[in-house]
Amino acid sequence: MKEMSLPIKLHLYEQVADDLARLIEKGTFRPGERVPSVRKLNLKLGVSMSTVLQAYVLLEDRGLIEARPQSGYYVRLHPRELPPEPRISKPPLFACNVDVSMLAAEVHEAAINLDNVPLGAATGSPELLPSHKLNRLLGIIARRSVITTNLYDTPQGNEDLRHQIARRSLDWGCHLSSEEIVTTFGCTEALNLCLRAVTAPGDTVAVESPIYWGLLQILESLKLKAQEIPTHPREGMSLEALENVLRRKKIAACFVSANFQNPLGSCMPDKNKKTLVEMLFRRGLPLIEDDVFGDLHFGQERPKAVKAFDKHGMVLLCSSFSKTISPGFRVGYAAPGKFVAQVRRLKLTNSISTATLLQMTIAEMLHNGGYDRHLRRLRKIYASQVQLMSQAICKYFPEGTKMTRPTGGHVLWVELPKSVDSLELYYQALEKNISIVPGPLFSPKQHYRNFIRLNCGFPWSERIERALITLGQMAAKRA
Amino acid sequence: MKEMSLPIKLHLYEQVADDLARLIEKGTFRPGERVPSVRKLNLKLGVSMSTVLQAYVLLEDRGLIEARPQSGYYVRLHPRELPPEPRISKPPLFACNVDVSMLAAEVHEAAINLDNVPLGAATGSPELLPSHKLNRLLGIIARRSVITTNLYDTPQGNEDLRHQIARRSLDWGCHLSSEEIVTTFGCTEALNLCLRAVTAPGDTVAVESPIYWGLLQILESLKLKAQEIPTHPREGMSLEALENVLRRKKIAACFVSANFQNPLGSCMPDKNKKTLVEMLFRRGLPLIEDDVFGDLHFGQERPKAVKAFDKHGMVLLCSSFSKTISPGFRVGYAAPGKFVAQVRRLKLTNSISTATLLQMTIAEMLHNGGYDRHLRRLRKIYASQVQLMSQAICKYFPEGTKMTRPTGGHVLWVELPKSVDSLELYYQALEKNISIVPGPLFSPKQHYRNFIRLNCGFPWSERIERALITLGQMAAKRA
Repeated sequence: MKEMSLPIKLHLYEQVADDLARLIEKGTFRPGERVPSVRKLNLKLGVSMSTVLQAYVLLEDRGLIEARPQSGYYVRLHPRELPPEPRISKPPLFACNVDVSMLAAEVHEAAINLDNVPLGAATGSPELLPSHKLNRLLGIIARRSVITTNLYDTPQGNEDLRHQIARRSLDWGCHLSSEEIVTTFGCTEALNLCLRAVTAPGDTVAVESPIYWGLLQILESLKLKAQEIPTHPREGMSLEALENVLRRKKIAACFVSANFQNPLGSCMPDKNKKTLVEMLFRRGLPLIEDDVFGDLHFGQERPKAVKAFDKHGMVLLCSSFSKTISPGFRVGYAAPGKFVAQVRRLKLTNSISTATLLQMTIAEMLHNGGYDRHLRRLRKIYASQVQLMSQAICKYFPEGTKMTRPTGGHVLWVELPKSVDSLELYYQALEKNISIVPGPLFSPKQHYRNFIRLNCGFPWSERIERALITLGQMAAKRA
Repeated sequence: MKEMSLPIKLHLYEQVADDLARLIEKGTFRPGERVPSVRKLNLKLGVSMSTVLQAYVLLEDRGLIEARPQSGYYVRLHPRELPPEPRISKPPLFACNVDVSMLAAEVHEAAINLDNVPLGAATGSPELLPSHKLNRLLGIIARRSVITTNLYDTPQGNEDLRHQIARRSLDWGCHLSSEEIVTTFGCTEALNLCLRAVTAPGDTVAVESPIYWGLLQILESLKLKAQEIPTHPREGMSLEALENVLRRKKIAACFVSANFQNPLGSCMPDKNKKTLVEMLFRRGLPLIEDDVFGDLHFGQERPKAVKAFDKHGMVLLCSSFSKTISPGFRVGYAAPGKFVAQVRRLKLTNSISTATLLQMTIAEMLHNGGYDRHLRRLRKIYASQVQLMSQAICKYFPEGTKMTRPTGGHVLWVELPKSVDSLELYYQALEKNISIVPGPLFSPKQHYRNFIRLNCGFPWSERIERALITLGQMAAKRA
């Protein structure tokens, strides 16, 4: 604040605003960071609270900062500074067998290897997750309930945990009871069980395009076909395109990740969610929903789950605590609507029950562990990290690069110039110990050859910035 | 010992032996219990050590007690006192779709409910398992490795745990490296992944008859058919019968639980294991082996795994620590031979990875936790509990009852008189809070209607004895 001059002018607040704007431009305050509070600046500069407030309103009008209720003003990433968004996807019109598992296993291995700069796996840094608190709770429960923790749980899962999840379902617009929930080993087991409950090998599932690569591998392993549906980078799956496909093809089920889709970060508007449920219900088709990023919204409101619009039990919601509490615990759940008995039975045959102690610990974390406080903090951090990363891409990547504008989660989907082969880029980056996920993994036909997905789950650092500079240079050489 | 008289006779040791025999008959020393040590009796009776020793040798000759190296003499269950064994099974000659999951889910729920007398689930009492030690180790690791424990592990699994398992594989006659092992959520996930690696929906798998009901549910959920093979209650699957089936039918894979098969407790002789591997290899067929009870042998020698005879990587061994350390931890593994890459990829799609902290804890338990000492103790306890239970069945069940002679594990397979319907018995027993598993669950065609499986994993108690009296009376009414 030392560099601020304060000549007496008619509109003092304009002067304050200009000075602040200069500091933002110089990078003293970076995108996603909080600017000093009104009270602090009032004391520091010796100008009135209302002058500071007016200055902030002016900066907000100029799009340089934004107010966040109960939290203050934050530096915005100016939209004009960012490369354009990718356009709505145009996947092929035919369904196809999925065959990406060899490459996927390899990319996964590199992505979770912490020797590499962690731009690959869509996971938050364990330093940002409440790891210490969690392990403390675990220690207490392990001492207190020695016998219980070492017994088989029921296939349906820990009663307390299901109760906590049911309570939280109000946040997503649902009113679940604990009886409607089955706990699982992560969202991945939930997706497997739900897909198996409503499809048979050889069936076709309608999916977003691009689509979470883990889901493609699940489809491949279950011998299911994927029908890609064009998907808008901000509004999600095109319902018009879906309707077209449903009219012409035999589809067994639909899969969507409506809230902060991986890799797009898109969030489907409520009216689309409602329409989607109705469209599918008319045809008697089940919908499998992946809501694993739903709690990580950057805006004030937690978006509703598609399941919130489900009146007939045809939506099978899957989620987990891997993105918000602990990937290593492998605790997730399904709310499979009318298919709950099938999913419970499949859980029994797939793994008998979820690990007893880990469920008890997550239940305690939800109940008494300050989970909401933690989530509020985490959301701000991810919002800021996504902005910082976006800005760096804007700065270091070659002309012609496009990128998404996620409103939640912590991944970015980057379209590189057409000539860049992201598989080559992946291998070259890995040689420099940088892990990314190449675009072809996000499509059963392995298109998106010039796209990459970048994880923003780790705190912004010089190491990450250097990795982005390197990636940008590699991409530029191919552009 | 008060009741022992000691008149001076020519053969004092005979007198001592007769007195002891009477005490055994009266139940002062019960089957499976240790008789007083030679030293103790020598002091107590004031007779020489060699007299006592001679008396014990005599009792051993009479088949009343048995010596266990480094452990002393134990009361034997006299074979003549037991009902006969069931005969080799004669399942139908055709393969059939499996459809037991509704009933199975219900029985499972009752079996793990500790309000019921625990004769249902094939699980050891958590009081007998090293639960306290385990949770202490867990607490230490959770404090020491906060960050690591909350990260995704690799799909292949924790390196230390795989190393410990590989070291132990020498005990089963294998020489595995940690690279050949994939960790899983219990043996159940291992069985799922291995079956999926080598079969496709619609395929037929050759299995023992009766067969572990959990496996039947897995087959059903994977849309596989089961071809039952006659199985001997002591020697396991009939290779002659298997050969006949292989000659006439299209079989995709074979499943065996060679060591202490569930429910028979049978143990396949080594030469049969070797022959089995060769028979299948000649036809290019993979063998899935469930060795989850292998460590629970009552004799001195740990039986070899079938995999010990596998020279070509065609045996996929599955096991877990649920029977020896903790069911609630859900930590198991597969050693899938040449199919290891497929199983690793399926693990990634089924649940990403096994829970990090729980794997680290089991690894530590195997490394420094006194696992071998614990196993030695547990084996003796189970041997004794199986004998006590066998004797009680002999005493309380109606004439015409037959039962197995397990040489390891902790379950008994009981054949009731033909007129007894074990499903009716199951429901009636459940009303009295006694859980058992009815025979029809152990066959895809739901025969074995007059059989039940009883768990001996919980310490012998009045509650268990009363339950067996009740079961015996219920069966007698139907006999």
